[in-house]
Amino acid sequence: MGVEDPVIITCSISGSLANREQCPAIPYTPAEYAAEARRAVDEGAAMIHIHARTPDGTPSYEIEDFQAIADAILAEVGDVIINFSTGAIGVPIAKRIAYLRACRPDVAALNMGSMNYAKYSAKRKEFVFKAVFANPFDEIIELLEAMNELAIKPEHECFDVGHVGSLAPLVDMRVLHPPLHVSCVMGVTGGIPPSARNLAMMADNIPAGSHWGVIGISRAQWMLVAASLTLGGSVRVGLEDNFYLPDGAMARSNGDLVAKARALTEDVGRRAATVPEARAILGVSGHGRLDAGRPSQAAGLDAPRR
Amino acid sequence: MGVEDPVIITCSISGSLANREQCPAIPYTPAEYAAEARRAVDEGAAMIHIHARTPDGTPSYEIEDFQAIADAILAEVGDVIINFSTGAIGVPIAKRIAYLRACRPDVAALNMGSMNYAKYSAKRKEFVFKAVFANPFDEIIELLEAMNELAIKPEHECFDVGHVGSLAPLVDMRVLHPPLHVSCVMGVTGGIPPSARNLAMMADNIPAGSHWGVIGISRAQWMLVAASLTLGGSVRVGLEDNFYLPDGAMARSNGDLVAKARALTEDVGRRAATVPEARAILGVSGHGRLDAGRPSQAAGLDAPRR
Amino acid sequence: MGVEDPVIITCSISGSLANREQCPAIPYTPAEYAAEARRAVDEGAAMIHIHARTPDGTPSYEIEDFQAIADAILAEVGDVIINFSTGAIGVPIAKRIAYLRACRPDVAALNMGSMNYAKYSAKRKEFVFKAVFANPFDEIIELLEAMNELAIKPEHECFDVGHVGSLAPLVDMRVLHPPLHVSCVMGVTGGIPPSARNLAMMADNIPAGSHWGVIGISRAQWMLVAASLTLGGSVRVGLEDNFYLPDGAMARSNGDLVAKARALTEDVGRRAATVPEARAILGVSGHGRLDAGRPSQAAGLDAPRR
Amino acid sequence: MGVEDPVIITCSISGSLANREQCPAIPYTPAEYAAEARRAVDEGAAMIHIHARTPDGTPSYEIEDFQAIADAILAEVGDVIINFSTGAIGVPIAKRIAYLRACRPDVAALNMGSMNYAKYSAKRKEFVFKAVFANPFDEIIELLEAMNELAIKPEHECFDVGHVGSLAPLVDMRVLHPPLHVSCVMGVTGGIPPSARNLAMMADNIPAGSHWGVIGISRAQWMLVAASLTLGGSVRVGLEDNFYLPDGAMARSNGDLVAKARALTEDVGRRAATVPEARAILGVSGHGRLDAGRPSQAAGLDAPRR
Repeated sequence: MGVEDPVIITCSISGSLANREQCPAIPYTPAEYAAEARRAVDEGAAMIHIHARTPDGTPSYEIEDFQAIADAILAEVGDVIINFSTGAIGVPIAKRIAYLRACRPDVAALNMGSMNYAKYSAKRKEFVFKAVFANPFDEIIELLEAMNELAIKPEHECFDVGHVGSLAPLVDMRVLHPPLHVSCVMGVTGGIPPSARNLAMMADNIPAGSHWGVIGISRAQWMLVAASLTLGGSVRVGLEDNFYLPDGAMARSNGDLVAKARALTEDVGRRAATVPEARAILGVSGHGRLDAGRPSQAAGLDAPRR
Repeated sequence: MGVEDPVIITCSISGSLANREQCPAIPYTPAEYAAEARRAVDEGAAMIHIHARTPDGTPSYEIEDFQAIADAILAEVGDVIINFSTGAIGVPIAKRIAYLRACRPDVAALNMGSMNYAKYSAKRKEFVFKAVFANPFDEIIELLEAMNELAIKPEHECFDVGHVGSLAPLVDMRVLHPPLHVSCVMGVTGGIPPSARNLAMMADNIPAGSHWGVIGISRAQWMLVAASLTLGGSVRVGLEDNFYLPDGAMARSNGDLVAKARALTEDVGRRAATVPEARAILGVSGHGRLDAGRPSQAAGLDAPRR
Repeated sequence: MGVEDPVIITCSISGSLANREQCPAIPYTPAEYAAEARRAVDEGAAMIHIHARTPDGTPSYEIEDFQAIADAILAEVGDVIINFSTGAIGVPIAKRIAYLRACRPDVAALNMGSMNYAKYSAKRKEFVFKAVFANPFDEIIELLEAMNELAIKPEHECFDVGHVGSLAPLVDMRVLHPPLHVSCVMGVTGGIPPSARNLAMMADNIPAGSHWGVIGISRAQWMLVAASLTLGGSVRVGLEDNFYLPDGAMARSNGDLVAKARALTEDVGRRAATVPEARAILGVSGHGRLDAGRPSQAAGLDAPRR
Repeated sequence: MGVEDPVIITCSISGSLANREQCPAIPYTPAEYAAEARRAVDEGAAMIHIHARTPDGTPSYEIEDFQAIADAILAEVGDVIINFSTGAIGVPIAKRIAYLRACRPDVAALNMGSMNYAKYSAKRKEFVFKAVFANPFDEIIELLEAMNELAIKPEHECFDVGHVGSLAPLVDMRVLHPPLHVSCVMGVTGGIPPSARNLAMMADNIPAGSHWGVIGISRAQWMLVAASLTLGGSVRVGLEDNFYLPDGAMARSNGDLVAKARALTEDVGRRAATVPEARAILGVSGHGRLDAGRPSQAAGLDAPRR
């Protein structure tokens, strides 16, 4: 992927950790998810990354919540690539596979390794939190086999170079099928330190022919967005990762964040991929997904899609 | 220099090769130089890089033209770092030193090596021009000795990694005195190819403790500006290097280009250095320069300076 | 650390996983450890990294085994930097601190992060083993506080860039005190892929002023030794990491491996650090260690040390 | 090219600048060239790089000297890839093309850019020599067109990243035909500083699918040989570039230098390419070269070749 190629802008519209007291624009209900997705898509997002919640904002791993949210989004925006999180601490793999099987999103994100996952406060001189984030190969393989069966494209979330390196044996075992879609996650203490130089090197470890992008967490996000754009990568923004615009103002919606990402994209001489372009780049056809179990609805939805 | 540090935005307001038929905003007369400098400084430039012209736009290496332009600029903007080009094909070194000696700018740019200097047209499948750009060590040393005597700070224009490497023997010989101010010039065929990865590596070759920035020529400029900002570097923009904004529109003035550079600076979480900050970073005091031979004027000029 | 600096050659003489059926030169008894250390030191090793075993070869975390082995080594070789492993799966931290407290080695190795730790067989198209190797920040901090109290220098074993990045908050909290001693471990699936480019990048993330080296696991070791030597790093070899010489022959002793590492060191124009040089580089004085609780013995041992 | 691939060891057996007072093993007569080539090939060299001399040691650009030397070498060693220098200061291009046309070596080296070419003495705090080494695009193109006509493979000698970047327009113009054979020359002041990191970056700029290697000048050579081997590159050694073995002893013959290069090759886990392998890698068939104008001789020579 070169700097001439279109940029897939992904928007992680909700996340599961933060709440509306911290940022009023975080969506809870399916209707709110749909409205946020609308704003994101209008500003240039081609993929929506979803952590489900119950309508009161509680994180959810239930099929009905994922389905309701995805349905609401697609009803609102016509077509967009739907990407479900599969990460969770303390939620059984089987439960996470169940909602993939029921809803069949285009893409599902997959954490590619274990790590210390921490946040350090330089001000307080202590860790705000620190945990072992375990994503064993057994779980990775189980999730990949389910995705293969369901024709769901994995997005490989890599928090360090070793997570990228873990792709090779899985390709060799034929659990994974190139071309891959790899996201470099930067800004978590315990993972690779967030810098343009580290992003370049991480990208250089990704198997040739893959599509890749950056997911910058918190403060350093905008620098990382710019770095990825200059290095040939795509970008993810959204309230899951960062609430703030570069000038320090809190985003009023995910659309604000996507608009800024698209402006940066164009400032470096690139352009945002359309949804069909992003589907072609990632190799996700848009057929037989989400609406798989809902033939009549699916037919109805197909018409207005771009 | 880290990504937290302020960014020195330099504006090369005129150049010597292009003319007003190609871009109407290029200044010819001292008054036009002053008006362009005003716009650049208002938008955030801390240093103005000057190639002199006679008032009809012809490139000039005469003392009176450099002096008239610098006087006009300082009269208009109060204080800004004045930076004179010393590069020229076919102009004797003595003549280039003469205007440094007479005008004593804060900074003088210095080409640090020889190279093939070419422009290739992929459309026409041929070189548009191609020349040997000779900057022998003898000339470099002669210019540096003059700058040392005159207390002019050199800006080292490096078109390749070997030009950066050529700094070390000169420091060792004590012709050059750290900290240095190094500009990585990218986008000329024959010089280092313009990419974020190459810029990172070039910057990694610069002696520790130096200040550095990027000068991107033509199309790739905005990508390189963004790359430098994410790698901890400063930036130069201006009509000498590139006429166009990222959206393809021709700049109506140097101010348009500086405004976009400052917006990018702030988008990645950095800020533009003020003139006093830039003086402190580069170690140029602002005393005993340009106005050296003009004590009464200097006194008058000092008052309105910021 | 530059390519002109002396190279600290460390020898990991035993390890805990492999046994003598796999490689007959692996030492089990204190006398065998001492003989192997002798060979390693004679060939140029300045530091001996120790996993203890009972005399029948079983891995041990008991004070008496560590003490007997260290005593035997020092009695045999006079002076060498003694470095104890603290890594173990399923052994309580308290037990691992107990032998540090009792024996007070010069240096103790410390795993700096969690990861998937696996070995993949391309031939069998399956993982030979795969586990989550958990090294939470809580344990890291507990071990560091003990080392601080005991004046034991930590060697930071980093299997990925994020492990290197985890040093910064610990320095900021003042649990860690620069200059640091950092080892980049390469060749474990789940950790950073073993390549010269990745080693350069990992080294570039290490805090300025630190000493660093490479620990290459299995096949890729000799390539990594050469890479580290050309990048300015030190090296570790030894039967814990790799049994084989570059020509495929199994090492008859740790001395064979150290001799080859020293030959490579000299081939690239560097030289092996002596024990006193290595002590100075790492900042480990050699006083009040190991023999701390054994004053009469210590007095006796001091005499013959180099 | 990966670290698993065979390494082409090239030997530059004579050079043109140094003489036998400086190093007694430098060959002057065709018989001496042949004897040195014999030693180099016996130790693992697959390509011999030749600067011609008259039998008294004077540098020569005459057809008969190149032809006599090449004939003597091939008569002695059977088959090896013959590589002629085309670099010279003050020798007309036509003269350099004349000996290519007459002798038709397998490969001809080609300097890919202009630069300051200097040697600095840190001891004397002055340049030992400094010149502008001009290799304009016009001359490069003229040499390439001749090589294309003669089916001679160019070896692109690149002293900086911009020289590598100069390949792209020539490929685009179809004056150059991939896959390319690129040598990174390091150790000349004015060119890219010699370091493993710079070599990695330079190699990363080489068009995909090319074969590449390093040519290290003087002291830093052995470090660069090791670096190239770990980065996936090939190597050149020989009395043109460096007289000394890593231990500081002067080589008694080119064979000593090749033997050490081969030992390093095997120490990092790679192996030297045979002549047929090197021919296949570089795409030089070995037919219709050197002996082109001498059918009867050629027939005679063909038999004993490997």
